[in-house]
Formats: sequence, structure tokens, C-alpha cells
Amino acid sequence: MTMPVITAYNWSPDRGRGLVRDMRVRWALEEVGRAYDVRYLSWGQQKEPAHRARNPFGQVPAYEEGDLVLFESGAIVFHVAESAPGLFPEDPAGRSRAIEWMFAALNSVEPVVWDLIIAKIIEGDRDWAAARLPVVEARLASRLEELSARLGDSDWLDGGFSAGDLLMVSVLRPIEGSDAIAKYPNLEAYVARGIARPAFKRAFEKWTAGQTGETPAAFAQHPPQPKGEAA
Amino acid sequence: MTMPVITAYNWSPDRGRGLVRDMRVRWALEEVGRAYDVRYLSWGQQKEPAHRARNPFGQVPAYEEGDLVLFESGAIVFHVAESAPGLFPEDPAGRSRAIEWMFAALNSVEPVVWDLIIAKIIEGDRDWAAARLPVVEARLASRLEELSARLGDSDWLDGGFSAGDLLMVSVLRPIEGSDAIAKYPNLEAYVARGIARPAFKRAFEKWTAGQTGETPAAFAQHPPQPKGEAA
Repeated sequence: MTMPVITAYNWSPDRGRGLVRDMRVRWALEEVGRAYDVRYLSWGQQKEPAHRARNPFGQVPAYEEGDLVLFESGAIVFHVAESAPGLFPEDPAGRSRAIEWMFAALNSVEPVVWDLIIAKIIEGDRDWAAARLPVVEARLASRLEELSARLGDSDWLDGGFSAGDLLMVSVLRPIEGSDAIAKYPNLEAYVARGIARPAFKRAFEKWTAGQTGETPAAFAQHPPQPKGEAA
Repeated sequence: MTMPVITAYNWSPDRGRGLVRDMRVRWALEEVGRAYDVRYLSWGQQKEPAHRARNPFGQVPAYEEGDLVLFESGAIVFHVAESAPGLFPEDPAGRSRAIEWMFAALNSVEPVVWDLIIAKIIEGDRDWAAARLPVVEARLASRLEELSARLGDSDWLDGGFSAGDLLMVSVLRPIEGSDAIAKYPNLEAYVARGIARPAFKRAFEKWTAGQTGETPAAFAQHPPQPKGEAA
């Protein structure tokens, strides 16, 4: 198999928490045991034409494997999961349900988590921020309650750990340690179980080692919430 | 092949525009030429345990095909696209890029479109709604500009029509005819091209024929934006 190259930032927008979406791809590659190279971008390079050709939205990650160039973390995790055993069950129905949870993470859960980050961080200094926050928190709580009810006391969402869990844990990580998730101990334990996996730890170590650039001032002024504070 | 059964509402939350997510699944089934049955839910039934067992978020669509039960429209469209030719290219790289656009539609474009719907409809009567709107509109415009630049003068996002286009057109439909998309004539033409497809038209006709229930008062009071008005 051709060794893939992923694109990532050499700086952290989140005080070293590793929440940028290349972490999902790194984690997936570690789970299936595939080696990879990293092309690092410094601040601003993500919006330049050379990277826009890889990712039209001027973001990371991108993924290159020979002639194949992909963007969108969900699609890259999918491609990695198909390339080697470890992230999809072998039976077709189980595989379909793992894919179901991939889409659920990215389309039904991440947007409500992200809306909290918008409300608290991106729009946090706006006049309306405090007044709007309870509405956003209520929408997130409703979705987390449903997810918590479905997970129940299972370790993972559907049988063994899958690409669906990898993405669901990833989209919940921004609210790890926050009041928003504290009401759902099974979800907190689920996230903890995910990031305790050796593959996640390896990915996080490599990600950390790649952080050689300066955090841009724009991010230093509006840092995403540190762990332990309300998200 | 087992005939699938999809779950849909028998009422319209959007004055008959057919924006609910079962439309994506119907459209996909029509594209690949598969017959299907519909299980209709009246208002409130989507939150009852019988449907929660199919869809933990208490929403439509759900998809049943023999023993396989799936929720999440992206995952169902994926399953349909794998089940019969018509929505994925045959070459593996082209298929990976079609999947890339599926995830891009649902994770990078739909959330910013949906944020506009939240700002204008769901939170439209809040004190902060007018002040916040320009921020939301700017975020959407930025993403649409990037999408427009990538599409250029192509008919579809990557070669022939694929499941990626089906979902991208679907997530853009809520802003069809609005000021938000009017600045990007190629995106407007792209949406028009999508909904002009015979498979879309068949899906829309069947969806319309299934609308036999009353629109709940909550939706009659806060109807999604009609076509032609700013979204």
C-alpha cells in the first residue's frame, strides 16, 4: 500500500488539546496500523491556492495517497477504514451500522456541539452571546440525552469499537470535562474509553510532536475552552 | 433484493417544499430504480419508543430492509448507493471522491445552512435574532463562495452525478431562491439541475402524495422560509 500523507497545522488553536480534525485521521491510521507522513502548514498556508487544490474549504486535513487526494475528515476516515481491518465489522449489516454512526457523529451530534463552541468562543464577545447561550445549551442537552439513552451501559455504540465510535468520541472531545456532558456519566465514560485506546494515544503523541509553530494571535485571544471549564 | 421501507412524516413542516430528510432517501432510491414502501408517522409519533428504536434521535428518516434497520439520511443514501448502480462511479478513486462530497455536504455545508435556518426561523423571534443574523450570513457566504469556486462551470462536483451531488443539492435546497445563494449563479444552476432530474421529480411527487396529515400548529406559526424570500 502507498504510504499516505496527511496535511495538518504545525500550531495548535486549542492550547494543545488536539481537537483539529487531522486528529481523527491520525487516530484511524493508528487503529489500522498504517504508517503515514505529515505535511505541516503554518498559519495562513491553509488558505493558499496550493492547499485549496487539496481542500476547497481551506482547512485541514487533506489526505494524499498516490494520485488520490481527499479532503473531509469523515471521508478520509472512511477510506482508511476500508483500506485495512480494524474499524469496520466484517458483516455487511454491522458495517452499515458503523457507517450510520459515522454520519450520526458528523451530521447529528457535531453541529450541536459546534454551535456551543460558536456561542461561547467564536461569538463569545458579542452582545447577544450571554442571552443566547441557554438556548444553545438546551439544544445540545437534548441531543446528548438521546445519545446517552441509546448508548446505555454499552462500551461502544454497536458491538465492538468502530469508525463510528472513533468519530463520535472525536466530536464529543471538545466538551470533555464540561458541565454539558457531566450530566451523562455514560457519555463521559465513553469518551474516556475512546481516548484511552493505545491508537489514540499514539496519534496524540505524534500530533503533539508536530506542534512546532506559533499559535496565531487571533487564537491566543479567543482560545477554545480548556478542559475542566464549562465548554 | 428485499423491498425497503422508509419512515416519513405524513405532514409537511415547510409548506410543501419537501425539505425533510426522507426526501434524500427517496431521491436516492429513485435514482437507482429501487421500489420502496413508506411508513408514515403523524405528529408526535416520531418521539415514541417504537420509532426511537429505529432512530434514537426521534426524527425521520429510518430505513428498514429485512433485518437491517438504519437511521441517518447520509448513511441510508450511502447504503442505497452501494446496493445498485447509479450513484457511485465504478473506479475506486472516483467512488472515494463521491463519498468525500457526501461528507462535505453533511458536515461542511449543511451546518452553515442550518445555522441560517436556526437564526431566521427557530430563533427568529428572539431578541438577539436581528443582531446576530449578519454574522450567520457571512459565515454561510464564505462557505458558499468556496463551494462555488470549486464547482466552477462544471455540471457536477466530480465528473458525473453522484451521491455526493444528491446530498449537496439537498442541503442547498433550503436556501434555493434566497438572497444567500443568488450571488452564486453557478450554485443556483447546480441546484436547479439537481431537482430537474426525473428521479428527483418522481420522489417529490410521491412525497407530496403522502402528505395527508395536518401540519402541527407549532410549524404553522413558524414556517420555514418560502421559496423566493430571503432564507
